[in-house]
Amino acid sequence: MTTIELLRKEQGSSSMLCVGLDTEIKKLPEHLRLQANGILDFNSAIVRTTSEFCSAYKINFAFYEQYGEQAFSLIKNTLKFIPNTKLTIADAKRGDIGNTSGAYARAVFDDMGFDAVTVNPYMGYDSIAPFLEFENKIVFILALTSNSGSEDFQRMESDGKPLYRHVIEKALMWKTKAHIGFVVGATRPQELQQIREYAGENCLLIPGIGTQGGNITDVVQANSNKPAVINVSRDILYASDKEDFAEAAASKAKHYFSHLQL
Amino acid sequence: MTTIELLRKEQGSSSMLCVGLDTEIKKLPEHLRLQANGILDFNSAIVRTTSEFCSAYKINFAFYEQYGEQAFSLIKNTLKFIPNTKLTIADAKRGDIGNTSGAYARAVFDDMGFDAVTVNPYMGYDSIAPFLEFENKIVFILALTSNSGSEDFQRMESDGKPLYRHVIEKALMWKTKAHIGFVVGATRPQELQQIREYAGENCLLIPGIGTQGGNITDVVQANSNKPAVINVSRDILYASDKEDFAEAAASKAKHYFSHLQL
Repeated sequence: MTTIELLRKEQGSSSMLCVGLDTEIKKLPEHLRLQANGILDFNSAIVRTTSEFCSAYKINFAFYEQYGEQAFSLIKNTLKFIPNTKLTIADAKRGDIGNTSGAYARAVFDDMGFDAVTVNPYMGYDSIAPFLEFENKIVFILALTSNSGSEDFQRMESDGKPLYRHVIEKALMWKTKAHIGFVVGATRPQELQQIREYAGENCLLIPGIGTQGGNITDVVQANSNKPAVINVSRDILYASDKEDFAEAAASKAKHYFSHLQL
Repeated sequence: MTTIELLRKEQGSSSMLCVGLDTEIKKLPEHLRLQANGILDFNSAIVRTTSEFCSAYKINFAFYEQYGEQAFSLIKNTLKFIPNTKLTIADAKRGDIGNTSGAYARAVFDDMGFDAVTVNPYMGYDSIAPFLEFENKIVFILALTSNSGSEDFQRMESDGKPLYRHVIEKALMWKTKAHIGFVVGATRPQELQQIREYAGENCLLIPGIGTQGGNITDVVQANSNKPAVINVSRDILYASDKEDFAEAAASKAKHYFSHLQL
């Protein structure tokens, strides 16, 4: 499968929108907050009403891990609600020495069955290599992130290029069976445009729209119709804190879809 | 508590040895491999026979996450075996945008109750800040790791200094309630010696002894008696694959202790 085929698993689905399921108990509508299955009921409803507008769902592990023992069963049960025509992204930002990263790769791809993962490049090639062994998966490597801390090291210049560019250029030379993609924050449209030039046809995962301040029109323009998954989490999930939350989420998703239709 | 007090939680414990509980079913002695509680029985036995020789236990999350839903209950149940006089390190290498890293910090410190964590600096200050809010914890930031991939980006020079040095120098200026430490691989004794000069009295977590090739004598010399936790995992855990595994592990731990006694 090509990256594009992976991205368009559903015949006729043609959206760059990814819905980020950053679900937290304290942010649930009140009627769900007190229920044992609150998180799963919420995720199920969100997936049901938003799926016609998106091509992907991203699950950020942190929000689930804070609930301890239940974490991975919450993640796996959420995956069951997602139609298998959608791309599923494990936003786990993993990375460790080779044999250890192998265990992380088995966790997200074999045990949980995600289609894609986010990984951290700080530890270099062998920390990512075990993920790259999996065919028909996308491995999104952090390049330039959407947060203020991206200033600290990612922009540090070496040989006249910022670190994030070295990450991209080096990764594009790595041997891989998977598809390599990059995480580039929506809060940097100018750099996004430059990155598009040297990231070729590789897929970008672009978070930071909405609550984090990224502008959807700027991002679409900067990406110039290349393969991309544009993520919105809180702005869709928490569009309403009342019983109409799922409809409000659908309405927000529809709004983004109007910009992200292919 | 000072870092030193944290490291010497046990009155009279005076070892720099940390035992890494990188437990995998396929590496268990045969009689435990087929048991439902094999991992926990193994960890319990290892802790029982090695605890007199070490001051810390490190749990690398990857090895547990590969077992899916059970992951966090395996980790939490393992913590119950560890005497509360020992430092417990969550080797999770986490890092995400601020609000998300907050959830990871709650997971390891509040929910699981670890004393220390490893974090990845690539995303910069706000990705680590939520961990630094916790008093009496140690936050070990990856600096120069023990794997071959550390060549790829960590050594990249900017303003005449390698990236890992920028990480250390910048982190030492960050506002923190926790103690900041750094991960420096045992496979680089020369750089370890240099790092000791500019990391001051901050604690180093030094993995890479044994299976990874780091030499214990070189490391002790390079560290020159500054605060450090020196980790050995596989070489202790899998000293024997027979029923005498716990005694064999103790004997290996005792050997390392002879070099790491304070």
